[in-house]
Amino acid sequence: MPQYDVVTLGETMMRLTPPGYLRIEQTRSFDIWVGGTESNTAVGLARLGLRAAWLSRLPATPMGRYVSNRVAQYGVDVSRVIWADADERLGIFFHEKSQAPRTSHIIYDRADSAMSRIQPGDLPSALFAEGVASMFHVTGITLAISDSARATALAAMGRAKDAGWQISFDTNYRSGLWSGPQAADGCHEAMALADIVFCPSGDYQVMYGEATAEDAIAKLAQEYPKATIVMTMGRDGALARSASGALMRQPAILAGDIGRIGGGDAFAAGFLYAWLTGADLALALKWGAAMSAHKYTIHGDLPLVDFDEVEALVEGASGGGLVR
Amino acid sequence: MPQYDVVTLGETMMRLTPPGYLRIEQTRSFDIWVGGTESNTAVGLARLGLRAAWLSRLPATPMGRYVSNRVAQYGVDVSRVIWADADERLGIFFHEKSQAPRTSHIIYDRADSAMSRIQPGDLPSALFAEGVASMFHVTGITLAISDSARATALAAMGRAKDAGWQISFDTNYRSGLWSGPQAADGCHEAMALADIVFCPSGDYQVMYGEATAEDAIAKLAQEYPKATIVMTMGRDGALARSASGALMRQPAILAGDIGRIGGGDAFAAGFLYAWLTGADLALALKWGAAMSAHKYTIHGDLPLVDFDEVEALVEGASGGGLVR
Amino acid sequence: MPQYDVVTLGETMMRLTPPGYLRIEQTRSFDIWVGGTESNTAVGLARLGLRAAWLSRLPATPMGRYVSNRVAQYGVDVSRVIWADADERLGIFFHEKSQAPRTSHIIYDRADSAMSRIQPGDLPSALFAEGVASMFHVTGITLAISDSARATALAAMGRAKDAGWQISFDTNYRSGLWSGPQAADGCHEAMALADIVFCPSGDYQVMYGEATAEDAIAKLAQEYPKATIVMTMGRDGALARSASGALMRQPAILAGDIGRIGGGDAFAAGFLYAWLTGADLALALKWGAAMSAHKYTIHGDLPLVDFDEVEALVEGASGGGLVR
Amino acid sequence: MPQYDVVTLGETMMRLTPPGYLRIEQTRSFDIWVGGTESNTAVGLARLGLRAAWLSRLPATPMGRYVSNRVAQYGVDVSRVIWADADERLGIFFHEKSQAPRTSHIIYDRADSAMSRIQPGDLPSALFAEGVASMFHVTGITLAISDSARATALAAMGRAKDAGWQISFDTNYRSGLWSGPQAADGCHEAMALADIVFCPSGDYQVMYGEATAEDAIAKLAQEYPKATIVMTMGRDGALARSASGALMRQPAILAGDIGRIGGGDAFAAGFLYAWLTGADLALALKWGAAMSAHKYTIHGDLPLVDFDEVEALVEGASGGGLVR
Amino acid sequence: MPQYDVVTLGETMMRLTPPGYLRIEQTRSFDIWVGGTESNTAVGLARLGLRAAWLSRLPATPMGRYVSNRVAQYGVDVSRVIWADADERLGIFFHEKSQAPRTSHIIYDRADSAMSRIQPGDLPSALFAEGVASMFHVTGITLAISDSARATALAAMGRAKDAGWQISFDTNYRSGLWSGPQAADGCHEAMALADIVFCPSGDYQVMYGEATAEDAIAKLAQEYPKATIVMTMGRDGALARSASGALMRQPAILAGDIGRIGGGDAFAAGFLYAWLTGADLALALKWGAAMSAHKYTIHGDLPLVDFDEVEALVEGASGGGLVR
Amino acid sequence: MPQYDVVTLGETMMRLTPPGYLRIEQTRSFDIWVGGTESNTAVGLARLGLRAAWLSRLPATPMGRYVSNRVAQYGVDVSRVIWADADERLGIFFHEKSQAPRTSHIIYDRADSAMSRIQPGDLPSALFAEGVASMFHVTGITLAISDSARATALAAMGRAKDAGWQISFDTNYRSGLWSGPQAADGCHEAMALADIVFCPSGDYQVMYGEATAEDAIAKLAQEYPKATIVMTMGRDGALARSASGALMRQPAILAGDIGRIGGGDAFAAGFLYAWLTGADLALALKWGAAMSAHKYTIHGDLPLVDFDEVEALVEGASGGGLVR
Repeated sequence: MPQYDVVTLGETMMRLTPPGYLRIEQTRSFDIWVGGTESNTAVGLARLGLRAAWLSRLPATPMGRYVSNRVAQYGVDVSRVIWADADERLGIFFHEKSQAPRTSHIIYDRADSAMSRIQPGDLPSALFAEGVASMFHVTGITLAISDSARATALAAMGRAKDAGWQISFDTNYRSGLWSGPQAADGCHEAMALADIVFCPSGDYQVMYGEATAEDAIAKLAQEYPKATIVMTMGRDGALARSASGALMRQPAILAGDIGRIGGGDAFAAGFLYAWLTGADLALALKWGAAMSAHKYTIHGDLPLVDFDEVEALVEGASGGGLVR
Repeated sequence: MPQYDVVTLGETMMRLTPPGYLRIEQTRSFDIWVGGTESNTAVGLARLGLRAAWLSRLPATPMGRYVSNRVAQYGVDVSRVIWADADERLGIFFHEKSQAPRTSHIIYDRADSAMSRIQPGDLPSALFAEGVASMFHVTGITLAISDSARATALAAMGRAKDAGWQISFDTNYRSGLWSGPQAADGCHEAMALADIVFCPSGDYQVMYGEATAEDAIAKLAQEYPKATIVMTMGRDGALARSASGALMRQPAILAGDIGRIGGGDAFAAGFLYAWLTGADLALALKWGAAMSAHKYTIHGDLPLVDFDEVEALVEGASGGGLVR
Repeated sequence: MPQYDVVTLGETMMRLTPPGYLRIEQTRSFDIWVGGTESNTAVGLARLGLRAAWLSRLPATPMGRYVSNRVAQYGVDVSRVIWADADERLGIFFHEKSQAPRTSHIIYDRADSAMSRIQPGDLPSALFAEGVASMFHVTGITLAISDSARATALAAMGRAKDAGWQISFDTNYRSGLWSGPQAADGCHEAMALADIVFCPSGDYQVMYGEATAEDAIAKLAQEYPKATIVMTMGRDGALARSASGALMRQPAILAGDIGRIGGGDAFAAGFLYAWLTGADLALALKWGAAMSAHKYTIHGDLPLVDFDEVEALVEGASGGGLVR
Repeated sequence: MPQYDVVTLGETMMRLTPPGYLRIEQTRSFDIWVGGTESNTAVGLARLGLRAAWLSRLPATPMGRYVSNRVAQYGVDVSRVIWADADERLGIFFHEKSQAPRTSHIIYDRADSAMSRIQPGDLPSALFAEGVASMFHVTGITLAISDSARATALAAMGRAKDAGWQISFDTNYRSGLWSGPQAADGCHEAMALADIVFCPSGDYQVMYGEATAEDAIAKLAQEYPKATIVMTMGRDGALARSASGALMRQPAILAGDIGRIGGGDAFAAGFLYAWLTGADLALALKWGAAMSAHKYTIHGDLPLVDFDEVEALVEGASGGGLVR
Repeated sequence: MPQYDVVTLGETMMRLTPPGYLRIEQTRSFDIWVGGTESNTAVGLARLGLRAAWLSRLPATPMGRYVSNRVAQYGVDVSRVIWADADERLGIFFHEKSQAPRTSHIIYDRADSAMSRIQPGDLPSALFAEGVASMFHVTGITLAISDSARATALAAMGRAKDAGWQISFDTNYRSGLWSGPQAADGCHEAMALADIVFCPSGDYQVMYGEATAEDAIAKLAQEYPKATIVMTMGRDGALARSASGALMRQPAILAGDIGRIGGGDAFAAGFLYAWLTGADLALALKWGAAMSAHKYTIHGDLPLVDFDEVEALVEGASGGGLVR
Repeated sequence: MPQYDVVTLGETMMRLTPPGYLRIEQTRSFDIWVGGTESNTAVGLARLGLRAAWLSRLPATPMGRYVSNRVAQYGVDVSRVIWADADERLGIFFHEKSQAPRTSHIIYDRADSAMSRIQPGDLPSALFAEGVASMFHVTGITLAISDSARATALAAMGRAKDAGWQISFDTNYRSGLWSGPQAADGCHEAMALADIVFCPSGDYQVMYGEATAEDAIAKLAQEYPKATIVMTMGRDGALARSASGALMRQPAILAGDIGRIGGGDAFAAGFLYAWLTGADLALALKWGAAMSAHKYTIHGDLPLVDFDEVEALVEGASGGGLVR
């Protein structure tokens, strides 16, 4: 049995959010959360019972430890984190939540973070070996935050591939990091390596231009024929195409609005959990949708679900209500 | 004039709830509430202007006093509480509130509480006398928490009956305490003594099996012909049958979702208030529904309504809005 | 260029609100906000980039400074505030927020406040001169809180008129301060002076009797022919009539329910901003509606909008969502 | 056995305090406490096991109920409270706590409170009868807040005296209410009626002029020869003189600084508890000092002690430390 | 190299504490901490860089996970925790912090916890093997909470001894669990197995009777000649006696009073860290004292020190002050 | 009369601090303060009644506005602030407060802030004219944060000098920004321009080497003969030397420990207030010491004193206690 089911690599930041719906200008305190797409997914996998490890580079400061503590707390292996000197910085993002017609905002302050300075040489040499893990998962954000992070991520993907691990990749487009065409170009090499590609329909539009979901997934399949393509579409659910060309649809599961941040990462965690435990594509989509729906009810970035409650939703329970 | 309008008997616990919608695993603090079905109803009666007393057994600890303080604060007479030694414990329950599709949970930690050790001999001897009170109210929970609590509750009902008081009983089924058939069996003696029986339709299904509300109430009336039967049905309102066989319906009043815990206890308080002040069955149902609707807008377990606002709702006010 | 775009005059109080939906009887703390109709509007104008000054009379206590600090913080000039002795008091209001069917309440404790003792002689003599400001704005509340406040407000309006400023007046009826007929009578002199009259349809009903909005605005126009009349109608949007008789309609913009207090003051701010920067009546109504919609999403009384987000809404953006 | 050990009469206010040592200008919230000298003492008596009733006049508002709830919660009988209309106001005081060299401040906003409008005719007629209570306790504050409150307090003292109750009076000088000479004059009639007079040495200096504690107590004894005089002296402890001329000294008990407000009221509660349960003067002083020392460790105005911990201190326990 | 430096076994509870110095009867919320002597020590060891594992039995509830999350968060291996069914309970303790002369209290509600039901058969069979760990650490509390916990702890000690690990034992007397003589008797077998015995001087007095520290340590050495005996003495520092009879003294290091709970467990962590990394007895005492002093400045039960700051204190830094 | 008494220039950051004494790793929220040495001093001057303006460069983000709002709130003119684009960042610092022997830490995350990118060309050209202000105040921090900030500060000092304003300079050494010798070198040009030089004795040691305060001040006077030199010495008070060679001593005023951050900036504010209102050197030192003592009792970085309370301390009041 491999030591890890999934190894991930990416930046995790401290998220500072005013309580409730206060504007930043109004608040006297920030609630602190930690969030980063790959560690969010890793936590989701661990909550569902898989063994996940998260690679990153953190400053040896209380803020850096804050991040690793929270990720470790929920069962993810953080023993491979690279610790930078205490004079490096942790990326931060500010989150101001609103009701319509006001728009919620995330404001990044992540430039020059310790993780953006990661180098391929920082990768733990013994880790990327045959049988150590079953899968490597990374997203477009890691490719975009810096040249050295991109080089590191691609090196990791290559080594993981060589070691016989599956590769999972999520485009995870962020407009603050690069343009759509830059992202399309920048993700190409990773997508070509991937066995599973998550590409939200919104990302597709920005990266490749307007298209129906069906057309979009077809074009991706043409470009990346060996990959299973998963396209989440918000309220329209998800669409997936297996490498053999089978199309599967999954309706969205209605959910609360407490914790939409990290919903896509939770989807990936649910999908990958099912995928790695032998589910077929349709069932994997259902696990993704159920996990994402639960995430929408949970504060913070991390999908702190219980296995039983996700499984119940997958199996058709209506949820909600009060059990006592 | 009797000293008390209503005397109740039951267990009240400390409720520990994370702020807002945080999961227990996420919280750094618990908000503290106190709740117990009979004291909830007693507080509701006191808020509406009746004189209510609550009997229970509490440990002589800060936690025990916490409960009696809160119940006393809102005008309920707690002078008859039996104080156990400080090495006994107060029952606790944890409440994790969620949005759909996540399910809210109440997790009880009430085993071996001071109240579960109450004995019939603890009952204040002089209390259960003619003219001291008009009504005794208790629920199925008190029958279920322990053999000695059950014996105590039945003894109190018997003495109250002997003293010429009316008897009110609410089945209040809790799955953590007994099975449906056990509850049906265990409540029989109390229901046979009762002048008023509250039996939520959900309780009926679990205790006696599937039935329409009409059938259910008919069967209860057949079994307990001297009682007025009140069946609350959630969003479907309430149905009641007088001892003389008249059926009354009351639609539910739409309300917020802040405080659904204790909604049934508030219904009982509203109904009993009206009943004891001379209302007919239809009006009593309306008071029950209005009181319950208000409870849904109030945090915690206690129905901290104002008389005027419940009365306005009974009289048809639409409610909501802002008055200044 | 005038020193100020708008000068306002009125009472600002400390607002004490339990957190969330707690009842006052349940809370252990009050959140503190400051609010007063004229300073709310002044803050809104300042947030949109105009230069606003606020006149008032405050006690030289920490509570008095609390109010002036908050108003100053958001860019309103408070250098003309009159400071009363420390033994005078600041007006307070308590706010208990509810869900339906419970009614939200504002309970005023404003009698004998420092502002209610303002005298015409307190007005800064050099201020009301030609070219110092473009507009003077005041509401019916200032007329109602005391005889001397009324005299002061009317004196200020007169001097402003003499100095060639425009006059803006909002009826802002408060049932705790006077009856409808008293308000109709008491506002007459001010309305006769005003170039712009804001009169919510609800105020009209109470002050002058039942009428359709069209009839109401026609009657006001007849009575006050030189004024532009603006009638806000809650969910029905707003209706306005120019001095030349043109009628304009503006639908309401759907918004959250976090911060409805101060929504009317925000409308006035949006309208006046547009009016003073050259917009036509239809566009001014749109700015009013957009500003008010944003206010509904913001805690407290002050419309702490960003210019860009209001402008986007005016220009037709749908709002909501998350930008990152 | 009388129904009450002690009946008190006085104003209780809502206290608004910033958390910790924040200045009022810095805080975003106020912690809410309730405090009034006579109800503080009543709560202390109830915590020690005596039966205490508190008379007052409160507005029928959430703020008024807030006060009565808190006083009732800790076992004081509030059934005799007179409820004024909802348009009357509750007295408020703001408390800003500091470290030296900054001075802590209490800022009163109590003018025209419901209690200040109490009339002698409001006194419950049946209460002041022989055998209903053992003692009546009131302080100089009640005499000072208004003419009608003064008349009411003196009427109550007279009736209590006539009914054979003992009379306890505390000068409780407040500089915001009257001058020293006014207080000396204003308290004279009450002191002449009293069996026990509490007069802090600081009050004495302001009311009668500089004197050593020994001289001060001698002069008071000369003026009020039938009374036992108790003079608290802060860190110098307390001095008392029995009606028979015996002088007793009690050193202060060192204590924390969390809750000095209400320390004198707690002293009175401890003293009166001991006095009423048969202690001699020396022991009563010890109970006063112990109760006051405990109060210094307790937030808020109310002396929420446990009987056992005060008794232990009286009996010489050193206190502090951790018991588990 | 062994997999673990230290393996511990014991109960960890949820600690509920009012904020600041509020009494339990005053608070509206509890701050949540987790604490248990053996996991406290394990966390301390992990913070200093050693590899620690903690064995326990927890209910599979959010409360059980709460405990394991917090322990895992700070680097302790919790993978060996035994998970009981969700209907078992987690031990709780309430903590009311006071200033003198009021006494702080810990009130346990730990009866019948999941950990108290642990059985020797629950011990992971493969763990207690040669070379897997260097040391096993347990305290008298685990011996006292139940017969089966005692049997389990002794079984673990025996297996660890057989596997060639060192054994560390702390008497950790708790009056709520057993009497002094019971503890003396109950700890004998464990102390006879131990290589290191921590026995606070206060424990000694209760367990064996009054004695000077020198006499006490001599008597323990006579009884348990193969063990190094470490006697902490609060403000008097610590005294230790090596198996060869050398006596070492360590003065206490003055520290704050924020976090005295867990001070002894931190001492053990500091001592064992030094012991296991080759320090001599005098230096190990210094590490114990420094670690304990730091714990006194840290909220909660866990010694969340940084290695550098403890090392600096060991090396003589004065500490305190502000570094920027 | 000049428009401003004092113009300052410098960086102000957001300070993030865990509540109370929590470690950063323990907290779930940060309290937000704003602090920057020059704006701290400007706020102090405004609280004492002078007109102060603060120049800086802030990003046009909610975080940037947060800073300007808070500085404006307390009466400082922020109309000259230069607003950078929203993609620039605000400097942040984290503050972890401790008790001894743990050391409090400030951890800066200020690299590449908007203020560090200020250019001399950003200075408002019309401001630095004769008669616009009386004094310009800046500190060594502004010289150290970047080359362009240094060039801007020196340009401002030069223009202010040319306009006939007095120049005040505080060395304000920060080890994270430069070494002692770098600071000595880097401050030379500014000190040579200054009329008043504040140089804490601790700064002197680091910048110039060990010396007694007397020697240090003599050497500074020799180097900068036209300046009045003020040397604060913590608990040893302050020493000052006028340009004419007179030495004045001021003992420290004992104060609490709530708010030591900003104590030196408060000293400067008190000193400069007195200096600018005609006090002699001895009295100015007393105002500095009194202001600083008050700052130690106030949370956050800003010296939110009341004029009266500082004046009372200057005039010899003992402070502390409770006034009501």
